[in-house]
Amino acid sequence: MAGLLGGKGANLAEMASIDLNIPQGFTITTETCRIYNTTMRLPDGLFEELRTHLDILETKTGKTFGDDENPLLVSVRSGAKVSMPGMMDTILNIGLNSKTVEVLAKIDERFAWDSFRRFIQMFGDVVLGIKMELFENELSKIKKTAGVSSDQELSAFHLKHLVTEYLKIVYSSYGEFPSDPHTQLIMAVEAVFKSWDNDRAKTYRRINNIPHDICTAATVQSMVFGNMDTNSGTGVCFTRNPSGGTNQLTGEYLINAQGEDVVAGIRTPQPISELQTRMPHVFKELKEVCEKLENHYKDMQDIEFTVEKGKLYLLQTRTGKRTAQAAIKIATDLVQQGIINKKTAVMRISPVHINQILHKQIDPCSKNKENLFTKALPASPGAAVGRIALDSDTVIKMADRHEDAVLVRKETSPDDIEGMHLAQGILTARGGITSHAAVVARGMGKCCITGASDIIIDYEARTVKTNGKILKEGDMLTLDGTTGEAYFGKLDVTEPAFSKDLQLLLSWADGFKSLFVRTNADTPEDAKKAREFGAQGIGLCRTEHMFFKEDRINAMREMILAYDEEGRKKALLKLLPYQKKDFLGIFESMEGLPVTIRLLDPPLHEFLPTDHKDLEIIANRMGVSKEDLQNKINSLREFNPMLGHRGCRLAITYPEIAEMQVHAIISAASELQKQGKEIIPEIEVPLIGSKQELEFVSEIINRTANRIMKRHNTNIKYKIGTMIEVPRAALTAGSIAESADFFSFGTNDLTQMGFGFSRDDSDKFISQYMKKGIFIYDPFQQLDQEGIGELVKITVEKGRQTKPSLEIGICGEHGGEPESIKFFHKAGLDYVSCSPYRVPAARLVAAQASIVDDKAKTDI
Amino acid sequence: MAGLLGGKGANLAEMASIDLNIPQGFTITTETCRIYNTTMRLPDGLFEELRTHLDILETKTGKTFGDDENPLLVSVRSGAKVSMPGMMDTILNIGLNSKTVEVLAKIDERFAWDSFRRFIQMFGDVVLGIKMELFENELSKIKKTAGVSSDQELSAFHLKHLVTEYLKIVYSSYGEFPSDPHTQLIMAVEAVFKSWDNDRAKTYRRINNIPHDICTAATVQSMVFGNMDTNSGTGVCFTRNPSGGTNQLTGEYLINAQGEDVVAGIRTPQPISELQTRMPHVFKELKEVCEKLENHYKDMQDIEFTVEKGKLYLLQTRTGKRTAQAAIKIATDLVQQGIINKKTAVMRISPVHINQILHKQIDPCSKNKENLFTKALPASPGAAVGRIALDSDTVIKMADRHEDAVLVRKETSPDDIEGMHLAQGILTARGGITSHAAVVARGMGKCCITGASDIIIDYEARTVKTNGKILKEGDMLTLDGTTGEAYFGKLDVTEPAFSKDLQLLLSWADGFKSLFVRTNADTPEDAKKAREFGAQGIGLCRTEHMFFKEDRINAMREMILAYDEEGRKKALLKLLPYQKKDFLGIFESMEGLPVTIRLLDPPLHEFLPTDHKDLEIIANRMGVSKEDLQNKINSLREFNPMLGHRGCRLAITYPEIAEMQVHAIISAASELQKQGKEIIPEIEVPLIGSKQELEFVSEIINRTANRIMKRHNTNIKYKIGTMIEVPRAALTAGSIAESADFFSFGTNDLTQMGFGFSRDDSDKFISQYMKKGIFIYDPFQQLDQEGIGELVKITVEKGRQTKPSLEIGICGEHGGEPESIKFFHKAGLDYVSCSPYRVPAARLVAAQASIVDDKAKTDI
Repeated sequence: MAGLLGGKGANLAEMASIDLNIPQGFTITTETCRIYNTTMRLPDGLFEELRTHLDILETKTGKTFGDDENPLLVSVRSGAKVSMPGMMDTILNIGLNSKTVEVLAKIDERFAWDSFRRFIQMFGDVVLGIKMELFENELSKIKKTAGVSSDQELSAFHLKHLVTEYLKIVYSSYGEFPSDPHTQLIMAVEAVFKSWDNDRAKTYRRINNIPHDICTAATVQSMVFGNMDTNSGTGVCFTRNPSGGTNQLTGEYLINAQGEDVVAGIRTPQPISELQTRMPHVFKELKEVCEKLENHYKDMQDIEFTVEKGKLYLLQTRTGKRTAQAAIKIATDLVQQGIINKKTAVMRISPVHINQILHKQIDPCSKNKENLFTKALPASPGAAVGRIALDSDTVIKMADRHEDAVLVRKETSPDDIEGMHLAQGILTARGGITSHAAVVARGMGKCCITGASDIIIDYEARTVKTNGKILKEGDMLTLDGTTGEAYFGKLDVTEPAFSKDLQLLLSWADGFKSLFVRTNADTPEDAKKAREFGAQGIGLCRTEHMFFKEDRINAMREMILAYDEEGRKKALLKLLPYQKKDFLGIFESMEGLPVTIRLLDPPLHEFLPTDHKDLEIIANRMGVSKEDLQNKINSLREFNPMLGHRGCRLAITYPEIAEMQVHAIISAASELQKQGKEIIPEIEVPLIGSKQELEFVSEIINRTANRIMKRHNTNIKYKIGTMIEVPRAALTAGSIAESADFFSFGTNDLTQMGFGFSRDDSDKFISQYMKKGIFIYDPFQQLDQEGIGELVKITVEKGRQTKPSLEIGICGEHGGEPESIKFFHKAGLDYVSCSPYRVPAARLVAAQASIVDDKAKTDI
Repeated sequence: MAGLLGGKGANLAEMASIDLNIPQGFTITTETCRIYNTTMRLPDGLFEELRTHLDILETKTGKTFGDDENPLLVSVRSGAKVSMPGMMDTILNIGLNSKTVEVLAKIDERFAWDSFRRFIQMFGDVVLGIKMELFENELSKIKKTAGVSSDQELSAFHLKHLVTEYLKIVYSSYGEFPSDPHTQLIMAVEAVFKSWDNDRAKTYRRINNIPHDICTAATVQSMVFGNMDTNSGTGVCFTRNPSGGTNQLTGEYLINAQGEDVVAGIRTPQPISELQTRMPHVFKELKEVCEKLENHYKDMQDIEFTVEKGKLYLLQTRTGKRTAQAAIKIATDLVQQGIINKKTAVMRISPVHINQILHKQIDPCSKNKENLFTKALPASPGAAVGRIALDSDTVIKMADRHEDAVLVRKETSPDDIEGMHLAQGILTARGGITSHAAVVARGMGKCCITGASDIIIDYEARTVKTNGKILKEGDMLTLDGTTGEAYFGKLDVTEPAFSKDLQLLLSWADGFKSLFVRTNADTPEDAKKAREFGAQGIGLCRTEHMFFKEDRINAMREMILAYDEEGRKKALLKLLPYQKKDFLGIFESMEGLPVTIRLLDPPLHEFLPTDHKDLEIIANRMGVSKEDLQNKINSLREFNPMLGHRGCRLAITYPEIAEMQVHAIISAASELQKQGKEIIPEIEVPLIGSKQELEFVSEIINRTANRIMKRHNTNIKYKIGTMIEVPRAALTAGSIAESADFFSFGTNDLTQMGFGFSRDDSDKFISQYMKKGIFIYDPFQQLDQEGIGELVKITVEKGRQTKPSLEIGICGEHGGEPESIKFFHKAGLDYVSCSPYRVPAARLVAAQASIVDDKAKTDI
């Protein structure tokens, strides 16, 4: 029905059909509007048809349109199939003229003249196209004359005078004021239809992707008045609490008032609960109405009502907006009340809801333009409040003093891990949504804003500047990682909660989803957190982050800078016990679930010292000169490290690195297996581009694993698989699958290489691409389904053709992004893997994708 | 037949079938060898079968195997289907023993005992497995005793004594010497079969990709002797001159000698022409035989013959090896003689032949291990001789003094263009086959060697070191760009020639090929050269190289470093006249043919100054401080410039650059059109990854072109197309084709991004990949058909599906590589484009691909 009658018209028809008391009316269809928009004139016979329906309306209401005794007043309301709030026009109080106003004046003189002057103003503006400011000027003048400051204070006398002045404006601007109610009505209908094509409506449709040809309906409805007497009133209410979600009427009302008075805020409205004492029978009816509406619409409703002389009229009902917490509580409550089923509850929650309640949130009321410091990329959600620290050492010192710190850097490096860990949040001037700071912060579930290119950090002066505002180190700063905004000072924040309701809802979601949800976790702490959030294993454990810790980085550097294999082996031997300990912790926290461990991946120079002090330390430890060491470091530099000596290329040129890592993995797994624990290691080789590479590294893995298992006298069932992150790997997936037990998409690199975009450098031009409309989203945030998605599809098809049992997952940043998850579901992947804090939302989205998919199948 | 009889056996059978006089014989099939290799014994009944064939042989020759009066001697020769020269064994003179030797001795005593001692030695070594050095020691001893220094000087007496000593060796090592000729024969056959599986044969097959199971045949042939008397002799000859290709018998002979004497060099052989006087009837017969052979085999033959008592025997014929020049002359001559058709001539020439004669070549005889300086990557073919110059300024000074220079640098940069242009050749210590030096040198058709990582260049001391050898600036050096070798001093070189024969052959090739061949040319000179070589247009004109010249680089730098659009426009205005002049020259030299011009592509910082002097100059010109300028330069630095702000991303962020270039293109084309010349510009947008990017830039191009055409009052029919070099462009080719008139594959970048290999950094690990057998060739030299080729196929399929008329070419380095050209033909491309000097070979390969393709189709 909504297609023909518009949302509002259909809604009224629907309310009428369940016997709710609504102001009587009828709807002129969207079809009529379409004819009007094509021919620029109302169709023949419309007037006669209107008359017929007015007759019925007059009969139902016992009032007569244009009658001097008992006049019927109507409104004409716009309403398309899709809600476009405030974009099109509505005209109230049609039927008022110098005669009918007098009838109303008998009831309430002030109300009558106020209604009339409002009508002239609205009709003048919307229908006759008279400049609003002409009316506003007159209104200001009369307020001055009356010595009052608000419209509400004007007396009937002044309003009556205002009507005279308003009519003068109409005469001089338009020629005449159409006093005939039928003329008013037909002009109002035409104006509503015309408003479908006003500029703001067109823009709104373009932005929201609403077709231009669905057109609006026009609903003609009899007016009811809450300001007839003290037995009248008006109010708005939610059928449940939209803030917490509890099942109780929430809202407010005013006695002897019109709808807009509730909003205007001149009189303070009463809480809806007091209506029970004031008008018990109305309250009772309202409660029944709410129940009826919830049972009918099967969701919490936001309603507007008017009481005219003790009689309750429903003006409007719609699904009520609510907080994330309320959304989840309401959905689970409705299931338990038997109103909706679990599937519906799961479909009704947005992943945004879940992310909101899992992170600290800044109270929106405490934000304003004056305290905004900068707005940049929302790299990791949540909120952080603390003192500005311009380096990690300062963060550490503040932490020692039990002060909260916010780390503000041009960019972060692996050296900053400790500082990032201790800081409340991170703000960087450079880098995108997948920069070092962003990736690490998301992994930690820590609020982070990146790419704040308008801030200037002066490490010497210890200040942060933007647009002439200067903050000093130690000043308070508040970050909103969900919006990417940073604010001066300390704003109010709400604490996160993984509530019982959410857990219940997600348990239902798990029942629907076919995708497994794993987590990206590099530490036992992250792994534990993710398991609490429902992760079904680790999809990506990056081993490189393990080597950045103070006690390991030096051994790592020695390994890289060694002049021969022997030197490397010596340094690797120092790293082995650390690696084994890492894996023991991670395996234990994921006991019984698969753990995918990626062999060393980044270009080696990422680990190398950049400052002279560190260089000296390493040179001393290695017994070489600083100059020699600097030369060695220079020789490792690359023009394009992202396309350089990294990934499996490291294992191929330095097999001893892979040997050490496999040694650590298999001996950790062996020790735990002996304790009776089930350990499921999946060893992942990064950056594979050809089957031959995988076979070469697999041989190293198998040889080492066999040696270690023999030593421990164990039999670990490990898998060997590969990242699919080089386009060629996708294109030759059929042959690579011959040698792989599993594939895991590294969609960050696949996006980098597929687009030819360095994620470290592309912020500058991607932001321009977005501005110029070339991209509608950043492909590093949301998977580009057309291009990179094609590589995903090719891989799945070719890989499964070779090996139907091939396990395929995704561990890139896109694994936690809702639109991308839906795509991965459709592409037939086995699992997605994302950072711990994104796991709950991923579970939800995976379930929603399954439900939609099943529905699509059933529909066929 | 070759499958069963082996190459040699089949050849002999074939010669017999055309009534040539060959020593009689028969062949034991490869099938027998296969049985032997499986069961390790000769099949039952072989002996009886051998006897039957020996009977026939005895009848034909009138001699009897093992007979004391008129003994038949035979050889057993190995020979597989595929030639494996010297890998397997052959045994001569079978049938000799202490009785039969005496029969021979009646003819020539010395020859008889020499043959016998050779037989014992060969049989002992090959069949009985006795160490060769035992025989060699005895031979040395007897030479000492006889007081002679060479085997040839030993008398019959000494040789007879040697036989006694040799037989002692056989008795003590093996137990007995098999004197029965039938036993000798069966043992020899077994030894030949066994030699199929010796180590050197297995290695040879592995390297040359020859199947292990094709096995060898064994040919039993009666022996003939050229050393019977002065009416006997032996020789080798080519039916045409293998060096220049002229149609005359070329070779040498010896009277009263055995085949190996010709090779041994003790007696100086006579030129074959003298045989005409010495043995006129034999010479006449030989000439007839040669004609017969050429008519039969339809190619120049390399034959071995023996004259026994005035009777001519052919021992062997095979297709003769020849120089590149001869190959082309012979092929064209054979066509003109009506022996082969044009298709066959085209198929018979290798692209290597063409590249050889188009470049200077070093005389192979002047090369030796002692004068080798280094061996690295053969980046651009040809030869160069000149004095070492360690920088471009020195090259320029040497050129002023009319001295030839060879530029030796760690790596080259755009600053070196002038020096590279003036140098005879270039040698760099770093960089691969697609480095700056390599690409520019190939474009110039100049010899270049890159990646000589073992040389150490000391710019201070002005020396070049390798392995302890030191050269000073000014010392002579010779480069062989075809092999990648550099030599001390001045070696002899041959001059290149684009001969009439070659032009004729290529004109035939053009008749067969369906691929067009264009050239990559950035200057009018290159364009002219390429057109001489038969290029059918320009497939890639890189505009960036144009800005590296001294007079332009500063304006270019000003443009890049400008602080706003106005500053950029001011600098671009300085560049405009240069650009227009460039295009005028290029368009004129390619009049009537399409010219694809690529808009600016490289990351901007490639143009920026790196040394302080240049920085100061620019700062002064721009009126800013050096520090500010340095900051600006730093801000343009990228982590991965190859994936950074380049290609169409420049045109999107700085539309004014594209505007200037299009302005120059269209106004140059307009001026020439007004002179009545046909100009066909194709404007190419680099690095497109999505249709939206192309549309954005197309709008700039069309807007600018229309403005300029209006000003000139012309109508230029230009095309707009895109490089396909980003994997995503290939994957979304269907949608990009909607907005493109043509596609041109940039397979260098496609390989970089498809593999995730930076071509600036990957030498190190790709060389390891080759060593470890992970790659069998460098994918930057030869297109990876499995992976990158898949992107090519996807592009062609999707692009043509959208737009069947879409023009598709390739302008990456692979466009000139034979195996890749064949692939591009199969993939259905319209053209390949390569550097001027690769054009002729590309025309040939394109024709060969078509011929093979037609044949494949006919075969179906």
